[in-house]
Amino acid sequence: MSATPRVTSLTDLPPTEAKWIKLQKATYTDAHGASRIWEIATRKTTGSAGVDAVAMGNILHHPSKPPSTILVLQFRPPVNAFTVEWPAGLIDADETPEQAAVRELYEETGYTGTVVSSSPAVAADPGMTSANMVLVMMDVQLEEGQEEPEQHLDEGEDIKRVVVPLAELYERLVAFADEGYVVAAKLYHWAAGVRYALDHPELFGKVGGGT
Amino acid sequence: MSATPRVTSLTDLPPTEAKWIKLQKATYTDAHGASRIWEIATRKTTGSAGVDAVAMGNILHHPSKPPSTILVLQFRPPVNAFTVEWPAGLIDADETPEQAAVRELYEETGYTGTVVSSSPAVAADPGMTSANMVLVMMDVQLEEGQEEPEQHLDEGEDIKRVVVPLAELYERLVAFADEGYVVAAKLYHWAAGVRYALDHPELFGKVGGGT
Repeated sequence: MSATPRVTSLTDLPPTEAKWIKLQKATYTDAHGASRIWEIATRKTTGSAGVDAVAMGNILHHPSKPPSTILVLQFRPPVNAFTVEWPAGLIDADETPEQAAVRELYEETGYTGTVVSSSPAVAADPGMTSANMVLVMMDVQLEEGQEEPEQHLDEGEDIKRVVVPLAELYERLVAFADEGYVVAAKLYHWAAGVRYALDHPELFGKVGGGT
Repeated sequence: MSATPRVTSLTDLPPTEAKWIKLQKATYTDAHGASRIWEIATRKTTGSAGVDAVAMGNILHHPSKPPSTILVLQFRPPVNAFTVEWPAGLIDADETPEQAAVRELYEETGYTGTVVSSSPAVAADPGMTSANMVLVMMDVQLEEGQEEPEQHLDEGEDIKRVVVPLAELYERLVAFADEGYVVAAKLYHWAAGVRYALDHPELFGKVGGGT
């Protein structure tokens, strides 16, 4: 190691060569009864649960350090850049989203977490793809003096970890973007929601009215 | 009108027929200097700004009603379901994200909004696609007695609007999912971030420590 990852060529991918994704043409009936066409990018790997991926919205609790979350930095060829994301992964054929969440968090970060809640299956980019995912919120309880555990990455995976205090999450994501990282939209939206609620608590009161 | 939209057939899309999206093969150098392949779904329509899409995180301010946000419901063939999303659209070739946000909010909802802030360009699903977007937060100031304005939709667009008080956003999204709607991941993450911050304000304090 260590080279700087980069895309060296980008060519059309013939469908006969594609192993992971494909293009599909949906013929659909619209609300007026007319027949229309929509182009879709689809994963070939969707398992029996009907959910492609899981992301782990993790909270690290430590006796003496501020509540934090662990993010992963990795080179993502589709955007030809290092991304900033919550740990995430595809759900194996025989897994529930929650089982995949515990496994993937362990593999990507070394930490064993507890599932707190799961989202419904939500759509990654429903104007373009059928891909969907579940956000699993997880707690990780750390002990005083505990060392950072080893990752358990697949061959070829190169994933850096960064622990960010929750109080600084939004500002750190903006700083990452300024430095040339590409922040994942879903993580950005969660952090922006947090920031918005903290900055404008009066907008979320049950009484309302803006006063 | 009105038929119930549904996908009637789903077939492989030959690349020669595809107008909006394509498959690409990235050859890239990883951190160890090895040459690897990644499969990517790409939009063919990315404009000069290098950003595909914009979503409008809108806040409706009304003199006597609770602060709310307007969501759009529409049939999305890629997920063969009605989705719940913030208004959004592709950025035209000659537009900034903010110009697209004002235009698309007007077209999809009839409302004229003011841009409050813009996110960096964030990645919709960076393990699979190059697609990216900007979240533009917008304020819409309503007046007492103002009627709901007309939409200005393109031919073939069929978009329903629903106004949701911010205080109920998260619960309403979960209820939509229970009813069979597919919630967009980005909107869900924003609402989940809000809910998390409101439920756990102590985790976001500058002092930290969980006390």
